Amino acid sequence: MNATIISIGNELLSGLTVNSNASFIGEKLTEIGVQVVRIDTVGDDESFILSALNQAILDSDVIVITGGLGPTEDDLTKPVIAKFLNAEMKYHPEVYARIERLFLKRGKTMPLSNRNQAELPDRTEPIPNSMGTAPGLKFLHKKKQFYVLPGVPKEMRAMVERVIVPELKERAGERIFLSQTFKTTGISESLLQDKLHLFSKLIPDVTLAYLPQLTGVVLRVSLYGDSESRCKEQLQQAGEYILEQAGDVIYSAEGEEIEEVIGHLLSDRNLTISVAESCTGGLIGHMLTNVPGSSDYFHQGVIAYSNEAKTELLHVPPSLIKKHGAVSAQTAEAMAVGIRELSGSDIGISVTGIAGPGGGTPEKPVGLVYIGYSSVDKTISEKHLFWKDRLLNKTRSAVAALDLLRKQLLIS
Amino acid sequence: MNATIISIGNELLSGLTVNSNASFIGEKLTEIGVQVVRIDTVGDDESFILSALNQAILDSDVIVITGGLGPTEDDLTKPVIAKFLNAEMKYHPEVYARIERLFLKRGKTMPLSNRNQAELPDRTEPIPNSMGTAPGLKFLHKKKQFYVLPGVPKEMRAMVERVIVPELKERAGERIFLSQTFKTTGISESLLQDKLHLFSKLIPDVTLAYLPQLTGVVLRVSLYGDSESRCKEQLQQAGEYILEQAGDVIYSAEGEEIEEVIGHLLSDRNLTISVAESCTGGLIGHMLTNVPGSSDYFHQGVIAYSNEAKTELLHVPPSLIKKHGAVSAQTAEAMAVGIRELSGSDIGISVTGIAGPGGGTPEKPVGLVYIGYSSVDKTISEKHLFWKDRLLNKTRSAVAALDLLRKQLLIS
Repeated sequence: MNATIISIGNELLSGLTVNSNASFIGEKLTEIGVQVVRIDTVGDDESFILSALNQAILDSDVIVITGGLGPTEDDLTKPVIAKFLNAEMKYHPEVYARIERLFLKRGKTMPLSNRNQAELPDRTEPIPNSMGTAPGLKFLHKKKQFYVLPGVPKEMRAMVERVIVPELKERAGERIFLSQTFKTTGISESLLQDKLHLFSKLIPDVTLAYLPQLTGVVLRVSLYGDSESRCKEQLQQAGEYILEQAGDVIYSAEGEEIEEVIGHLLSDRNLTISVAESCTGGLIGHMLTNVPGSSDYFHQGVIAYSNEAKTELLHVPPSLIKKHGAVSAQTAEAMAVGIRELSGSDIGISVTGIAGPGGGTPEKPVGLVYIGYSSVDKTISEKHLFWKDRLLNKTRSAVAALDLLRKQLLIS
Repeated sequence: MNATIISIGNELLSGLTVNSNASFIGEKLTEIGVQVVRIDTVGDDESFILSALNQAILDSDVIVITGGLGPTEDDLTKPVIAKFLNAEMKYHPEVYARIERLFLKRGKTMPLSNRNQAELPDRTEPIPNSMGTAPGLKFLHKKKQFYVLPGVPKEMRAMVERVIVPELKERAGERIFLSQTFKTTGISESLLQDKLHLFSKLIPDVTLAYLPQLTGVVLRVSLYGDSESRCKEQLQQAGEYILEQAGDVIYSAEGEEIEEVIGHLLSDRNLTISVAESCTGGLIGHMLTNVPGSSDYFHQGVIAYSNEAKTELLHVPPSLIKKHGAVSAQTAEAMAVGIRELSGSDIGISVTGIAGPGGGTPEKPVGLVYIGYSSVDKTISEKHLFWKDRLLNKTRSAVAALDLLRKQLLIS
């Protein structure tokens, strides 16, 4: 079963609003085995809405429309649907009564502009709105199933979950959809593709998607099928191939963030950690503490932005900084030792680098970053050369530090 | 001049990725008076990409396409464009040399899969990629202007700003578009609406949009017109009304992030700052250091997640924590004094609170946050009660702390 999503609203076209409604609907439909083939976003404009409806009939079995159902003048969806169906508007007294009750319940009089919400095109059926006033509507036309939903996210979401998903799940029947998400860091999309170049030959039924993100490239494998056991088998085969070829750069095979993976590893081993950050400026601490319950293993951090902070708080010898520079393997290691000793944690990690855009030299360019790791057993560091963008450098440095920590935890 | 945006990628249809690229392009085109009439999102599928291209020719003068330009197998855009143009692929040695140089510069060998990025359909012209390997491309076809851009946001953004905007601005000609962005924090969308309820009556030609974000509600006013002086006058009138009614909750009337505003204020006053963070976990440091050059005024931070860190590093008396609790006005103030004294900065700010989802009690629920401020002259604190979501609480707490700092800097 194929689906088209039609999003209606000028604010989506002018970039004022990001179309997260369409992503939500796309995700929910994909999960129940309905394949979304097109998201068509048009303005509050009759001819474009009609064009989108006519195209959708050609492409899809199911058409989900959002937006333009409000009470105001620029909400065109219902009159255009009426025109599309060549239908009159019909007054629904039970819908009117429901909207009026909603206003009364809040001690308010129903504004005139809300009254037309009780009028729906003939041949359409209202979908009750549990979160607001405007009802949705649904109808069959040329054997295609249409759903028309409000653009207000919580109202739209409730209708998708309570009406569309159950109805389509039944119609989609036995079709199985399975997917798995792998997260990588420290490797480019093209190198990853080289590692996995036999994928589509070996496991042709499984789709492999590469999604580059600030933290690294996300891999997603997915497939549709009729037999659950056969699908599971193929997905497992895909996962085995991916881990075999690229396991060294994958920090999660379950779509987890690296800070969640770290959280499990530290908790399992009963270890505590503290961080000393220079160029990441607090980002590692922020990431670690995004995990609920992280206070069990994360003790403290020092953002040692100035050299004085590095020497006074973390006891990095001034002579060491003078000799090797604040951005050096030696300083990174001394910072990791310093924060471990200061905090009394089992492990200390550190980052020092040049985030840019200024501050680079030919010997130490923007993007040069050293990360350090120190435990009772050993102290090590790694050198990285990232890119010219400040936020990218901060993000990549933070993920690299957490990934070094992850690898050390796995061998410890 | 009308425009269509075509977004290509299965991940957009299945809800894995929200289509923020299209919003960015829509915003940039709208700003220069090019009206976006359709955003057509299709998968990595030849027939749907061709269908979108053929529809776009009917709708628009300018067509901007993103996605599917990467080096991997699922990147279909270039071959489909070649088919659409009935053109052969042509090898561009200068593009090849540029990509190879990029890899050499980072001391890496160019992967095989990157080589095909130097092949472009005949009759198209490469758009240099200042942020990555895949060049964009542009061409005229049936008198329509086509731009094809990578899906990686920073690469796409750079091409939009450096190539598309300047080229189209010239062609769009005399139509004036003006806009202004106000950033607020600490107020809900509906309360803000109440404050500004006369806006559309007083200044009917100016559009006012409310954009709720994690950091607070963004207000955007905009208008099209033929006379620049008349437009400027109306926009100024709008700005004056907004500042008059809601100036107390606006931290920027120029769309700046709060950390940028803070940066200017501290630099102008020659003041330095350090931070002591508990529940924000490093986020304030991360935000402050997102500003290039922040090392001039930001010295250091302490992420005092545990009570020990608060007492040992920041010298918050254990008796004070015992008496009032770690989440209290007293602890927040002691932390602010502690970090100021520890760092020798002019100002110390602090946050302590319950980010959730666990750790709340009836007296101190999830979302309860105290922020502290300390300078040589005074030490104060503020109490906030945010929401149940961890990331929201961290973000709102960080912005509230920076906003308290901003207000203190303005009166100091």
